[in-house]
Amino acid sequence: MALIVQKFGGTSVGSTEKIKNVAKRVLRSQQQGRQMVVVLSAMSGQTDKLISMAAEMQPLPDLREMDMLLATGEQVTVALFAMAVKAAGSDAVSLLGDQVRILTEARHTKARIREIDTELIRKHLDAGKVVVVAGFQGVTEDGDITTLGRGGSDTTAVALAAALKADSCEIYTDVEGVYTTDPNICAQARKIDMITYDEMLELASLGAKVLEIRSVGLAKRYSVPLHVRSTFSENEGTWVVEEDRIMESMLVSGITYSRKEARITIKGVPDQPGVASKIFQPISNAGIMVDMIIQNTREGQLTDITFTVLRADYLRTMDILKQTAAVVGAESVTGDESIAKISIVGVGMRNHSGIASTMFQVMANEGINIMMIATSEIKVSCIIAEKYTELAVRSLHAAFALDKTKPPVEE
Amino acid sequence: MALIVQKFGGTSVGSTEKIKNVAKRVLRSQQQGRQMVVVLSAMSGQTDKLISMAAEMQPLPDLREMDMLLATGEQVTVALFAMAVKAAGSDAVSLLGDQVRILTEARHTKARIREIDTELIRKHLDAGKVVVVAGFQGVTEDGDITTLGRGGSDTTAVALAAALKADSCEIYTDVEGVYTTDPNICAQARKIDMITYDEMLELASLGAKVLEIRSVGLAKRYSVPLHVRSTFSENEGTWVVEEDRIMESMLVSGITYSRKEARITIKGVPDQPGVASKIFQPISNAGIMVDMIIQNTREGQLTDITFTVLRADYLRTMDILKQTAAVVGAESVTGDESIAKISIVGVGMRNHSGIASTMFQVMANEGINIMMIATSEIKVSCIIAEKYTELAVRSLHAAFALDKTKPPVEE
Repeated sequence: MALIVQKFGGTSVGSTEKIKNVAKRVLRSQQQGRQMVVVLSAMSGQTDKLISMAAEMQPLPDLREMDMLLATGEQVTVALFAMAVKAAGSDAVSLLGDQVRILTEARHTKARIREIDTELIRKHLDAGKVVVVAGFQGVTEDGDITTLGRGGSDTTAVALAAALKADSCEIYTDVEGVYTTDPNICAQARKIDMITYDEMLELASLGAKVLEIRSVGLAKRYSVPLHVRSTFSENEGTWVVEEDRIMESMLVSGITYSRKEARITIKGVPDQPGVASKIFQPISNAGIMVDMIIQNTREGQLTDITFTVLRADYLRTMDILKQTAAVVGAESVTGDESIAKISIVGVGMRNHSGIASTMFQVMANEGINIMMIATSEIKVSCIIAEKYTELAVRSLHAAFALDKTKPPVEE
Repeated sequence: MALIVQKFGGTSVGSTEKIKNVAKRVLRSQQQGRQMVVVLSAMSGQTDKLISMAAEMQPLPDLREMDMLLATGEQVTVALFAMAVKAAGSDAVSLLGDQVRILTEARHTKARIREIDTELIRKHLDAGKVVVVAGFQGVTEDGDITTLGRGGSDTTAVALAAALKADSCEIYTDVEGVYTTDPNICAQARKIDMITYDEMLELASLGAKVLEIRSVGLAKRYSVPLHVRSTFSENEGTWVVEEDRIMESMLVSGITYSRKEARITIKGVPDQPGVASKIFQPISNAGIMVDMIIQNTREGQLTDITFTVLRADYLRTMDILKQTAAVVGAESVTGDESIAKISIVGVGMRNHSGIASTMFQVMANEGINIMMIATSEIKVSCIIAEKYTELAVRSLHAAFALDKTKPPVEE
């Protein structure tokens, strides 16, 4: 009998009415002869409400107690959901992270899963029950409640699917699947039918919000077929699978953009060994993540270094860098908050040359200046002025024919 | 070092501000050199909110899932409370029923405690922490969450105090303690300084709402000194203790009333063996509790039976009884919803005659007709017309000098 793990996020279970609808949907899946494990998030808004209560108690809330507090959100939804299944005439049982025994590290608020015990779940599945597991939470060796951090419920779902060797893991969301780009800025955006784990990892890390990157990595490691689809329709969504399941990939699968970054340049740095470390160590010590870095050596043993950080960290980074500039004897520090990062992603790039140059040509044709470039095996990212974001996305979407061709997939 | 268990109810922890205030209060107790275990209820209103969500899912919610749901209320308060203690510069740890290991029967929504493991609590106490335990909840052998029913947090507190052999168990509430009668209808009502477990049990079962009867019974069994006091003042409240700690008891300690009952009479029942059973079996089968029963034999082998039930069960009981009357050949069935039960309670009655007759005299002086009388070793209850409730309570309060004398207590 097929075993499916289905995960529903906060908006899908945001009211008692919605919980009932989701329960009916799960039962339709079960009636098709499947064993069902359902992973739920807290009702939308609930986690934020708990966080703000915690902030009223303690400016920097104790992390163990934070996990104790936040774990209640999912506990409420799983209990209500199990009632809804029973009201619909079927049987269900809700289980918390510590009841399943989703063993994690003791890193509160961002614990990683170490091990999952499947015995209790299997027992209930074999008894014909829908097993409803609280997402986002686990338990330490010592019995303390932990939470898994952002996108934790996706991670719970994929980890359970891996541990149970489920046939697939369905991630339900409020959109139809993964799109070639953001439909809000490009009307030609099209739902992708099938995509590889690696492409999905790049898309997720580049700003596509449908799936948390961590759960995609986990799905890849354990070869869990992911199916991202809509809570509110019966349409097939996007399958995230291993590369060999896709006969011939598109050159480019998707285009992403991010307006969350800022660019900073430190000019005229004496080009000596260790100078990069002197520049980036204080930034790293401040807990600031640096994304792209470009070093440009000029004549006369001077070098310019340009890098990007999250816009939220921009002012702090500028402050730190100005102090560093004085120490290392740099000429100037300049910055720009009005940038965007546009990326094209596709496993097809591996075997085809010319993808990057097509991208640069499209930009040039539109008169868009490229400030920085970064590449990986399956993606090319460019930093451009923010005002060109929509223009760049739409032009690239058309140039790579993402609006026209259905990618050829294995049927 | 003295060990105190303090329990705060829902109104005491009804907002983040109130939780902070309670935390400060607990820390003042700790600073006096005491080890502190704090038991908390859910924030006021929260449990009702969860119950109404459950009712939306399932008309008669599954009891296991109900416990899963309700237990979140206390989990929220203990986490917030531990944060508040930490914010105030001290150390605390919150623990759930299953983390302490408050082992209960598997009777969901009204489980009874079987055993409490004190090891983890002692470890944290010895480390100088305030131990904050979620009230109202426990866990079964199989790891399912249970709740303890009405007044469950009081029960948790007393059971913990018993298991830990605490020096006392302080029950915090929104009144100053246990009163000689309801201050709302008798301005002369006075706080009782000390009262016996047995008196408190009678008062609780007769309608005094300060303490749940179950926790008083538990306190009596394990000789846990209870101290009922106000969250909002530093005054001493009411001590509930063993009889031998009170040098000389008042003849009457308190006066209670209940307007929740109704009286029913079946007249002219043929007085044959087994007829009482024929009358009360169908009522009991319907799950209706009968309180007082009086049987009055008339001439000619006929008998009248009068009894009381909760007013909420009045109409159902009348219906059942009319059918029974036809079967056993009784003359008539009559009822009265407008009655009150007035009771006087005091261990002093054991050694003093004339308490009941004083009560009857007071009623007669006020022109109040007594419809029924029931007595136990330490109480006398009378059923009267509801409209005389306040008059009866005030007259008895004055007649037994409850407004004047401070009871002589062991100092």
